[in-house]
Formats: sequence, structure tokens, C-alpha cells
Amino acid sequence: MINKNDSILERINSPADLKLLSDDELKKLSDEIRKKIVDTVSQNGGHLASNLGVVELTIALHSVFNCPEDKIVWDVGHQSYAHKILTGRCSKINTIRRENGLSGFPKRSESKYDCFDTGHSSTSISAAFGIACAESAKNSDACTVAVIGDGALSGGLAFEGLNNAGRSGKNLIVVLNDNKMSISQNVGSMARYLSHLRVKPTYLQAKTKVHGFEKVPIIGKPVTQSMKGIKDWMRDDFFGQKNNIFSQLGFAYYGPYDGHDIQELKAVFKAVKHKHSPVLIHVRTKKGKGYEYAEKNPKVFHGVSSFDVETGETKCSSVGYSDVFGKLMCGLAEKDERICAITAAMSIGTGLNQFYKKYKDRFYDVGIAEEHAVTFAAGLAAGGMLPVFAVYSTFLQRSYDQILHDAALQNLHIVLAVDRAGIVGEDGETHQGIYDTAFLNTMPNVTIYSPSCFEELKVMLTRALFDTDGVAVVRYPRGGETYIPDDFEVSSEPFDIYGDMDSDILMVTYGREFSQLCLARENLIKKGVSSCILKLNTIKPLPEEAAAISKKFRYVFFFEEGVKSGGIGERFGLSLYQSGFAGRFSLTALDGFVAQAKTSSALHNAGLDAEMTETKILNDINSGGTANAGKKTT
Amino acid sequence: MINKNDSILERINSPADLKLLSDDELKKLSDEIRKKIVDTVSQNGGHLASNLGVVELTIALHSVFNCPEDKIVWDVGHQSYAHKILTGRCSKINTIRRENGLSGFPKRSESKYDCFDTGHSSTSISAAFGIACAESAKNSDACTVAVIGDGALSGGLAFEGLNNAGRSGKNLIVVLNDNKMSISQNVGSMARYLSHLRVKPTYLQAKTKVHGFEKVPIIGKPVTQSMKGIKDWMRDDFFGQKNNIFSQLGFAYYGPYDGHDIQELKAVFKAVKHKHSPVLIHVRTKKGKGYEYAEKNPKVFHGVSSFDVETGETKCSSVGYSDVFGKLMCGLAEKDERICAITAAMSIGTGLNQFYKKYKDRFYDVGIAEEHAVTFAAGLAAGGMLPVFAVYSTFLQRSYDQILHDAALQNLHIVLAVDRAGIVGEDGETHQGIYDTAFLNTMPNVTIYSPSCFEELKVMLTRALFDTDGVAVVRYPRGGETYIPDDFEVSSEPFDIYGDMDSDILMVTYGREFSQLCLARENLIKKGVSSCILKLNTIKPLPEEAAAISKKFRYVFFFEEGVKSGGIGERFGLSLYQSGFAGRFSLTALDGFVAQAKTSSALHNAGLDAEMTETKILNDINSGGTANAGKKTT
Repeated sequence: MINKNDSILERINSPADLKLLSDDELKKLSDEIRKKIVDTVSQNGGHLASNLGVVELTIALHSVFNCPEDKIVWDVGHQSYAHKILTGRCSKINTIRRENGLSGFPKRSESKYDCFDTGHSSTSISAAFGIACAESAKNSDACTVAVIGDGALSGGLAFEGLNNAGRSGKNLIVVLNDNKMSISQNVGSMARYLSHLRVKPTYLQAKTKVHGFEKVPIIGKPVTQSMKGIKDWMRDDFFGQKNNIFSQLGFAYYGPYDGHDIQELKAVFKAVKHKHSPVLIHVRTKKGKGYEYAEKNPKVFHGVSSFDVETGETKCSSVGYSDVFGKLMCGLAEKDERICAITAAMSIGTGLNQFYKKYKDRFYDVGIAEEHAVTFAAGLAAGGMLPVFAVYSTFLQRSYDQILHDAALQNLHIVLAVDRAGIVGEDGETHQGIYDTAFLNTMPNVTIYSPSCFEELKVMLTRALFDTDGVAVVRYPRGGETYIPDDFEVSSEPFDIYGDMDSDILMVTYGREFSQLCLARENLIKKGVSSCILKLNTIKPLPEEAAAISKKFRYVFFFEEGVKSGGIGERFGLSLYQSGFAGRFSLTALDGFVAQAKTSSALHNAGLDAEMTETKILNDINSGGTANAGKKTT
Repeated sequence: MINKNDSILERINSPADLKLLSDDELKKLSDEIRKKIVDTVSQNGGHLASNLGVVELTIALHSVFNCPEDKIVWDVGHQSYAHKILTGRCSKINTIRRENGLSGFPKRSESKYDCFDTGHSSTSISAAFGIACAESAKNSDACTVAVIGDGALSGGLAFEGLNNAGRSGKNLIVVLNDNKMSISQNVGSMARYLSHLRVKPTYLQAKTKVHGFEKVPIIGKPVTQSMKGIKDWMRDDFFGQKNNIFSQLGFAYYGPYDGHDIQELKAVFKAVKHKHSPVLIHVRTKKGKGYEYAEKNPKVFHGVSSFDVETGETKCSSVGYSDVFGKLMCGLAEKDERICAITAAMSIGTGLNQFYKKYKDRFYDVGIAEEHAVTFAAGLAAGGMLPVFAVYSTFLQRSYDQILHDAALQNLHIVLAVDRAGIVGEDGETHQGIYDTAFLNTMPNVTIYSPSCFEELKVMLTRALFDTDGVAVVRYPRGGETYIPDDFEVSSEPFDIYGDMDSDILMVTYGREFSQLCLARENLIKKGVSSCILKLNTIKPLPEEAAAISKKFRYVFFFEEGVKSGGIGERFGLSLYQSGFAGRFSLTALDGFVAQAKTSSALHNAGLDAEMTETKILNDINSGGTANAGKKTT
């Protein structure tokens, strides 16, 4: 344990301060940062293992490069905590992932040291290459660095970036942070290929181990054009890396290096800093490094809620939709051999782990590759299988064209199990699952089901598999079941009516939001206001009868835990008016982006929790000049 | 010229008939097919060069594989004419791309020989791998073949497919049809890498040239497991292909072969047919092969309208939006050094050829990689540039997440110049640009402009570049300007009002559809019915005042050349009602997919041409029981 008096971290106000430290001090600093990260994440939850893995790498980068003039793009960004700590945000790190606090991802609006916002995987090479081209256009000598994990390399976007940047002559440095993991164990032939590169001892590595990189002649100094031939020969033949995938794509490849050896990393970064052509530096790191429990179980400690630092015990979360989905899938697969499951590197998160164990032959982890996952599913369907792609809502955004062009257009029957639909909480803006209803709404041959409890998930997943043509979507939220009144009965109808049909007030919604409206309804009853709820189960196509029933009410309030523009509420509102409705329709949905906060707080801020929906209803009926509205006519 | 009496083609009713032909007859058949394709495309327009390039390849595939049990997935599908001719559709080939005729792309609904619909690039490996996995699950011995061009390989989806399929042990054969082109010359490091592979003479090739592939021992026969070591050694070391990118990704690599040598191709396909592990066969072809003008100018003959077979003269099309856009870009770039242009392998199609010549340093052809193009643009914007990504509407579907997550969320200022917006005509369902308004409508920080004439394109592109934050979209149709009345004046307002404000009837629209409504309005005047048109220039955000003005009318008709569900018309309709409108609102927009037909015919079928809009209006006002509606009150 570091005494506070000895703290090096306290002396670091900006990356410039790093440059004054000795190697020993940098080592000590890495211990302090690591402790800071463990303490912070144990309190706030967050990405632990990925952050612990890059502490030395981050220190080395900021020791060599001059940010913010030089730019570092963090792929995904869930490994940027050390970067935040070193770039003037140490004192605020305890606010990370909290409402109004630091983001768990890089944010340009948060710091000049964050040059590009990330959150989704595999974007860093494309973004960094764009920045590098801009710097080049401005005749700037700045370096642009993309730090990307090996997991993110399976994403096609990363390949497109490599393909475009390779041989470009731009000052782009790609640091491949190879920890053999995405969130789960890595899959795919690129991962296997890396494991092959990984074990190759290289001349460069051996040398730097002994002498430090600067002392290797030729490579350590800026290399003049005339020496290029020798250098190429050294790299290509002596290091035996002529034919690796990255050099074939036009990157000068160096590595692999020990990603926890600050001295070695600094030497490499200094050497390549002014190369003025694309470089890929392959660095091996250990996910969870330095915290025993995370090292042993990096999958669990990839993203965690708060935990006990001493024991490594994470909060035992209650049963969630993902678990229920996973169990249902196992049961269904037992009865129907055509059913197969697809995940894009999220087998645990989506609850498919049991399925994987029981039905290996029908389980496909395609890596971080959501586009492929959908087109692959379409292929499986064309071949007569019943594929279910389980995916977080936010990542399904990647598959827009594949859903429309490869599945819906052919009316191929695939099932999309859309997890983390709606507000997701602390991951914030980049991860909210609030667009799927709206973007799926634009596509023909797509049916969307939206359960509001586990039992409905069962009913709807079965319908999606066996009673639906084309693309069948079942979307459900992060976490577990929320409030459902005892007297509510699950149906297999396209919509349910709950409450007082004779009231003036109708609330319309779908999915989890139903819970909030049930609570609001109960509170309204206490105030003598009677109301009814129409819960859409099939939200696309909209059940025709729903508008016909709704138009009888005087006030119709649509509450939507999804984006307003292009969403279900707008469709519903228009169809309501067109059916002859003469009352007042009000739509409360999400406008713009939704900032990080506990889900309950985000719902409140958006006017979607029980309290706010109740207030909205009371205000509207009172301002409507009809104090009696909603009161049961006797 | 082939005498009709000698026709081999007439004897081919299905691929089985090919198997009875001698090599000489197959050669002759290829000439007949080529002539058929040239004749057909010269009449109907379509993809010429790509189809001429694969005639021998198609014959060889269908000579060896047994379709429909074996499956062939044609990437993009614009090279499937020979396949259609050989699979029972020869007599209908003259209907290709015509209304109710054969599709210019594979269509499952058209033939059992079309196992997967294509249209967009880079999907074939993913789809074929899905089919191969399904076949494997059914214990079928069928082969699945993906035929993919080198241009399509730059798409990340293709890489995701390779990465997932590599080392899978499935019976998947990828035929890499390497013609050094996408639509334009290929770009990117993969393309350069292929040029390196291309010149490598291989043992396999030399052997087959002399003896025919079957006579090479070991490879020619189904190889038993025990011989695997020898085979690997032969392939890896003797053929010197151990370290190419495809073998690194887990594919057994063979090639390159002459893609116009039917005998050689048949030998290779027979050899790998039962390999039961992923194989990549690299085939070199000449785009436009066998038709002099297309060989010389494959870019022009990639996709053509009708042309003169003897002279190779294509119809000189009049000036289109793309040309105007290209010119504007040159003018703007001259004045502002920050402006740069991005294309995803569509420099000619999007009109950027002049820009490329004048501003090479600020022109980026990223290859077929729409996802990357947007994230790259976001990077350029973060670096202070003003990037304009010119892209066909249908291909922008690929970039949904990148627009939302990488650009809009950071409010980075990029411009999307969305070409081929709206109905595109004969390319049909896969290529209609009818979703962009709806899917862009779901995103915050996105502004959409929709010009209806060249002058407006100029105004709006300038606004998009200099007067707009975040993602600025300018969308314009395929082809040229359509009817604009002489007395219509271009403004820079969010919307324009044209016609009789005192009328009962308001038509609302945006973009090219304005022309149809102007014509309809003139016809209505002749019938004594007066009307007004509200043309939205900014379609997102909706100009607030537009609803306020519209609500004064008794009938509001929204006509939208875009998808209805989630589109602009729905938003407008709802805001109209919510503003207190008490009249009748009617929305005519595109429902479902839009089949191939001339644009004029497709507009008619969808109720969107002048005739149909006029009819709709007359019907509605008459059924409204108000015969006088629309007549000017005096």
C-alpha cells in the first residue's frame, strides 16, 4: 500500500508531469493508478479488467506522446480510466459513470485530451486515420495513435480502417492491445492468427529487453530514406514478419512486446513516433492485471457493479431478462433441432452460456461482428434453420442494412433477441438501447414484440419463432423484472387493456414502461383519478384495433422508453387522429441523447417514471379545464 | 456469329445439360452467352462489364457443382446474368430489369437456382457460410460457393465473414473473382496486396496448364486425413502461399487461375469440391471480356443504359444531380481548403471525378466501405476539416451506427451528400433510396435538406457546409432535374409555399416529388380546383411554422417519395393534428419494398405521379361530401 505522503499520482496534473519521472517512479505510479482504479470501480461499478490491463501502456503513451497536440483514440473507450486519471481528471474519478460525473468513456466535451468519443467497438482506426489525414492537411507533425484490442479487430469496421490507412503515408500508429479476449474469449481466425504471432519471439523484443530500444541502431533513430532498404530487410527478413497480415495490409509491424513493461513500450513509441507512415505495434497485456480476482476471472470483471475489494465478491444480481432468455432458448432448442443461437462476442451478457454448453453445434459466436451476424443468420434461415441472434440493442444499430437488405427483403425468418433495450443506465449515451424501435420501424417484413415481464418474454419468443414470418424481433430491457400488478394477466394478444375502460384517461405504452404506468395508475386512484392502460405487445405492425379502442378516450397519453422521432408513439398518435379521435393526444418519449445516470434517475429525468407520468397526467387534465376528467363517471 | 441452327444455348434447359458438353462446346457456349448478354444489356441497360467477365467462370461452376442442391451465392449479384441464362431463364432474359421481368440480381422468388438475394456488396461470404452451416447441421454433403469480386473484399462485412468461416471445417468455397476493379479502379491495401498475389506464378497453375488438374496426384483426389500433412506441406511450402492473407485467415488458398479457361476452372472446382473445409480460389478475370468497348472502358460499361452494340456508343445522358454536385464541390473546395470529399468506390457515380483530378490531396476513395467512410469523416471533422461523404442512399444504410454513434453523438460536423435518393428505377428493390429520410429521422443532431432542383442543391449544399451544426444531409435523386414551374422561386427558407394560399387543399412534399405535385396542381386548375403546395426544404427538423400554416387548410395531402413507416409524413401529420388541425390529413408514401420498373412507372404504381396524386385529391375531396372543396372561394 502506498502512503499518501509518498503519492506520485498527486503530483501528476497533466501528462507533461510524467516526463519528469524516473522509470522507478513510473512503475510506482502504475501501482497507484491500479489501486485507484480498483477502488473506484469497486464503488461505482464499471469496466475493471480492461482498465487494469492498460495502465503501463497508458503511462508509456503519455510519457512519449505530447497530448493534446498528439492524439490518442481509445477503441471502445472502456480502457480509458488511467488516461483520465493522468489527464487532469484524477480528483473527479470517483464520479465516473455517475449522473453528471465523468463518463466511463472518452468524451470530447469532458477534456481536451479526449480527441474522439468512443463506446462501440472497432471505430478507432477509422477515426484516427481521419484525424491523421486532417493533421497532414494542416501540415502538422502531430502523431495520431489508435489503441485497439484484439477483440475489436474482428469488427469489419476495423478492417476497413486498416485497408484504407495501410500504405497511406500518414503518421498513424495503431497499438494492438492483445489480451486474447474481447469480453469473452476471442473467436475467429484473426484471433487464432494472433495467437500464432504472439508466440513468435522477435529480434526486436529480445534486443530491447537487454539494451533498451534506443540503443538498437537504425531503428532507434529517425531513419533516413536511404536507410529504408536496410530497415525493411531487418524487419522483414531478420524479424521474420514480412508476411504477417498487418504488413500485408501496408503497416510496418513491430512486436509483440510486453505491454506491462513501461521502459520497453516507451522505447518503441519513441522509435516510431516520427515514422510518417502507418505503424502497428503489437503489445501483449493481461486483462485484469494486478488485481488477483480480475486476472483469474476477466470475463466477470470486464464490466461489474460495485464489489468488495478484499474478497473480490461481486454483488449477486437477481435473475434478469438475459437469464430467462437463455433458459428459454435451451428449452426451445431441445424440442426443435432447427433452432440455433448467434452472439457477437456476448455469450455471457446475452445469457447464452448454457446454450453454448448444451448445444455447441448450434451455437455461433461470430466475434464482434454484428453486420455479419445478421447476414449469417439470414444464410442459416435460407438453409432451413431457425436462427436467433441475441444482441444488445445499441450494437444492433450496426446491422441496419443487413436486417433490411439481407433478411427483411427476402422475408427470411430470423429472430432478433434484442437485449438491453431501453435505457441502460451508467454506460450512458453511447450504449442506450433507445433507437431500435425507431429504426426497425422503418423496415417492411419486420415484426417487433415488446414483453414487459418474464412470462411475456416466453410467450413472445415462442411467437417470434413459430408464429411469425420474416424478421421477428423480441426486445427486452437490461436487468430484471419490474413491477407488474397481481391482477394483470399475460395474454398472447397484440395488446392488453388494463384498468378502467370507462375512464377518460388512457395511457399507452409498451415494454418495461408498463411498470411505471401501473404505479402511476395506482397513485392516481389514490387521488380519485381513474385511468386505463393500453399495453402494446406487438409494436410493429401496430394492432389496428388499438387506435379504435383508444379514440373513445378523452385523453390519450403515450409514454415511450425509446426515441421520439420516428418512434412508435408518433405512428400511434397519427393513426389515432386518423381514426377520428377528437381528444388530446400527448406523447412523452426520449428526445436527443440520454445521459448517464441510474436507470431510475434517467427515466425520471425523461418524464417516464411513475412520479413524472402521474404529474404529467394531472397537469394535462387540469389544464384541459376539466377537473373531473379521469374521475369515474357514476 | 453463331447460326441459330448451331445454337448450343438452345439445348441448355438446366445446368445438368452442361455436363454433357465437350470442352469445345463449352467454349462455343461461352461465346453465345456473351452475345446474348451484350444484346440484352444493349436493349435493357444493366450491368455489362461484370457479367461479361464471369461467363466462363459461371459455365465452369455449373458444370461441376450440382445446383440447386449445391448453392452459389453471387456477391452483389450484378454478375448473375450468365447464371440466369444457364438456369432456365434464357427465354426471359430479354425482360431483365423491366417491370415484372427478371431481376438484374439473384432472387429466391425467381428461381430455385437463386439461393440468396443479393444487391449490396460484400454479403456473400456471410450468407454462404450461414447456408454451409445449415447444410452441415442437416448432414448434407452439399457445397456452398460464394463468388465475390476483389472490390467487394474491401467491405468489412466480407472480412467478418472470412474471419468467422476460416478454419470452421465447413464445406465453403469462396471464389475470389479478381478483376482489379470495383466499379472504379480498386483502392486500399487489400487491392495492392492482391496485385502482389496476382503476379505470383504458382506450381498448381503451371501443372494444370499442362496436364489438367485431375492428373496432379494428391490434390486431384479426395484427400484422406492421413495425407493432410503432405498436402499442407505442398500447399504451404511448395506453392509458397503459406503466408498469404487468406491462408492466415484459415482458408486453403489456391490460385491464381485464368478465369477465362473453363477447363482449368473445372479441374480446380472438381478438386476442391469435397474438401470439407474452407477454400479460397483466386481467379483472374477481365471485366468486360469479349466485348471490345467494355474491355477498354469497364467503368463506363459497369452499369449502362441501352447502347449501340456496333459502335459501343452509350446514350449521352443529360446533366444530372451528380454532375451538378461534383461541379459545386469543385467550386466550394477552391474557396475553402478545409473541404474534402469522400467516396466509397463511387467517384464517377457520385460526380466526384473532377474533384479527384483537381484536389487529389483532399479526395478520399475509401473502397467499398461505407461504415468506415463515415467514421473516417468524423475523424476528419474532429481534426478541423469539412468532409463531404457522397454516397448513394441505399448504401448509406450501411452507416447507421457510424452516423449516430461516431458523428451525431459528438455533434461533429460532417456532410452527407446522399445521391440516388428516392426511387431509382430498374435496379429495383435492393437499390431504392427510400429509407434514408426515415432512418436519419431517428437521430438527434441530424439536419436533412431535400432540394427539388439544381439551384436548390447549390443553396442547400452551401447551407449544409457553412450554416449547419452536426450531421448535415443533402439528399437528391438519380438523374436530372424534373419539372419546375417558371414562376417558382428558389429560396433559402426551411419551406416554400407555392400556389393558392386561399384554397382548401394543401399538398405537402419535399424533393423531386414537388415536380409531380406542380403538374397535378396545373391539371387540377384546369378542372377548376385550386390548390396550394407546401414544399419542405429542411425536412429534419420539421419547420415548426409549417404545421401552423397547414392547419388552416381543410384538406392536407402529404405525398412522400420515401418509406411511410417512420418517415417525414407521419411526423408532419402528427404535428399537424397536435397543432389543432381539424381537417382531413392523408399520407401517400411508399409502403413495403418498391419493385423494379422505370422510375415514372414506379411513381405511378405508388400513387405518387402527377396523375395519381391528382386522382387521389379529387377522390378525397369528393368523398368528403364537399364538391366545392378546393374551388376558390370568391
